[in-house]
Amino acid sequence: MSSLLRKTIEAIVPLDEEAMTEARARQDMLTKPPGSLGDLEELSVRIAGIMRQGVPHIERKAIVTMAGDHGVVAEGVSAYPQEVTAQMIDNFINGGAAVNVLARHIGARVVVVDMGVSANLNPHPQLVSRKIAFGTGNIARETAMSWEEALRAVEAGIEVINGEVANGLDVVGVGDMGIGNTTPSAAICAAITGEPVADVTGRGTGIEDEQLKLKVKVIEMALALNRPDPDDAIDVLSKVGGFEIGGLTGVILGAAASSIPVVIDGFIAGASALLACRLCPEVRDYLIAAHLSSEPGHEMILDYLKLKPILDLEMRLGEGTGAALAISIIEAAVKILVEMATFTDAGISGKVE
Amino acid sequence: MSSLLRKTIEAIVPLDEEAMTEARARQDMLTKPPGSLGDLEELSVRIAGIMRQGVPHIERKAIVTMAGDHGVVAEGVSAYPQEVTAQMIDNFINGGAAVNVLARHIGARVVVVDMGVSANLNPHPQLVSRKIAFGTGNIARETAMSWEEALRAVEAGIEVINGEVANGLDVVGVGDMGIGNTTPSAAICAAITGEPVADVTGRGTGIEDEQLKLKVKVIEMALALNRPDPDDAIDVLSKVGGFEIGGLTGVILGAAASSIPVVIDGFIAGASALLACRLCPEVRDYLIAAHLSSEPGHEMILDYLKLKPILDLEMRLGEGTGAALAISIIEAAVKILVEMATFTDAGISGKVE
Repeated sequence: MSSLLRKTIEAIVPLDEEAMTEARARQDMLTKPPGSLGDLEELSVRIAGIMRQGVPHIERKAIVTMAGDHGVVAEGVSAYPQEVTAQMIDNFINGGAAVNVLARHIGARVVVVDMGVSANLNPHPQLVSRKIAFGTGNIARETAMSWEEALRAVEAGIEVINGEVANGLDVVGVGDMGIGNTTPSAAICAAITGEPVADVTGRGTGIEDEQLKLKVKVIEMALALNRPDPDDAIDVLSKVGGFEIGGLTGVILGAAASSIPVVIDGFIAGASALLACRLCPEVRDYLIAAHLSSEPGHEMILDYLKLKPILDLEMRLGEGTGAALAISIIEAAVKILVEMATFTDAGISGKVE
Repeated sequence: MSSLLRKTIEAIVPLDEEAMTEARARQDMLTKPPGSLGDLEELSVRIAGIMRQGVPHIERKAIVTMAGDHGVVAEGVSAYPQEVTAQMIDNFINGGAAVNVLARHIGARVVVVDMGVSANLNPHPQLVSRKIAFGTGNIARETAMSWEEALRAVEAGIEVINGEVANGLDVVGVGDMGIGNTTPSAAICAAITGEPVADVTGRGTGIEDEQLKLKVKVIEMALALNRPDPDDAIDVLSKVGGFEIGGLTGVILGAAASSIPVVIDGFIAGASALLACRLCPEVRDYLIAAHLSSEPGHEMILDYLKLKPILDLEMRLGEGTGAALAISIIEAAVKILVEMATFTDAGISGKVE
């Protein structure tokens, strides 16, 4: 294993129990019946443990949206043409996509990264170019990428997040853009969890029944041909993955190594999380599931990683849209912990004994 | 029926179909697969219909938190002493309660209203005093209030929201404070929906099994003694209700009459919504359910009103805390509709045909 990836994994440590104990104790002193804020309370405790501060503070927020193309679209697995990936990059840069709107709403910056879009993109100050190649190979006929490229994709993700951490960062959401990328995500999900392909494959951007059957067959072909080793995340990524998926795996690992909570968006970011947890099981505690996507494989991933989603709004867009909404809830949970008065502060009577 | 209540109910009209059609058409032109933002899309269409604008705008937000005390606490139905209601008013005014933190987070003002707290509260510019009485009667032994007081509570709520509308308001969340008020709320819920008392009664601020059994018995006594007429909301309110519950009923009606979306917090606000819908069935379309409370009766209310909650975070605090979080999601849904680029704007290819 190369040195940046190894160093990053080694830097990922268990959550800070002391900070969590402090946060839990404070939750019980706040002016509300204990437990009455439900999941917000446990969320604030998790954040305290991740950030290693009993009284954490969230201010600097980013959504990292990574884009890549997929050779497998040649099999007819997507409802949209491949050119949309590059077109959406422009939309992100111009601030017109859903993730831009939601990031503005929560006061987060959007970091747009070309990990492997199949077009020459014009340089732009708002676009991070980490292109590994012009799209992956068609996984139904060949590997997605070489082992070396897979590693470079993950390490590029680590470098991107390390740069963001250097700029100042308290929480990160990870999202994706890539026409066809529910196909490699389903392949990764089936390979790692062992679930049947038909159970983890969904309609993506909105394909009909016939095309869904074809998509399942294509993924089964890709797995049969490439035989990814489920115990080896880089092998899975290289054989049936995608460049943006590998990049997000790196972002997740790098954020955890810097004690930053990582908010997992939907199905594609979930596939990246599976790979990250395979590379380093300790990373799981740094992950917060933003929402439950309507892609069926997403629920499998959350169950596998034992993550409870914050939202369930039948969203299935990706880009980091679910992550953006969830970050606002996470921030609220932390503010509760930090800003609420205690029973003593406010001179309020406790429970009748 | 008195003239303010009648006038208010008459002003509540069906949602604006034209605005909804315009919003729906715009959703389908935005740069995302149709339907991929799930509930956010339908939410934005609802808001368009309520606000009677195809491209609505949400900026001025308020949480109205109404407080009252309940004679029934003499039966031992609550985990906290009655004095906490008045103490929490101070906490609201000082900005230290959960609802203050969450309202600040979303940029909303909190309007604190004394509808019937059982203590002399010091006047304060941040406290709206609409006190009908010093707490209700003990519903296990007598009526909660007179018919006249019930009507005055609802009309006070209408006046409060009319004042807020005059100050500028785009969306309102309704919340409650009142030690013991899950008891009258469960009584109202059982009276109106016809569900068994045991099924709609929960642990409130956190009572144990024995006390829960007692609470069920107390509510059954209250209903048997007072025999509220389920077809007459003012009768139900006067016999087994509460002053803050009646006030919130007025807020809900008044907001709908001014084409303002009303975000229902939890179980107590839900009981107010039941009463409002009994007074005027058209009001139901103006209601947005913030979250699913862990009080069991809340789910019954949402089912009865056919409302799908935005959040499910096992919260059960009240105050308007769930409403505050949900308003941020509603605002996000509206921003998506207003701010996202269309396929034409962004020059993005559509679906493969």
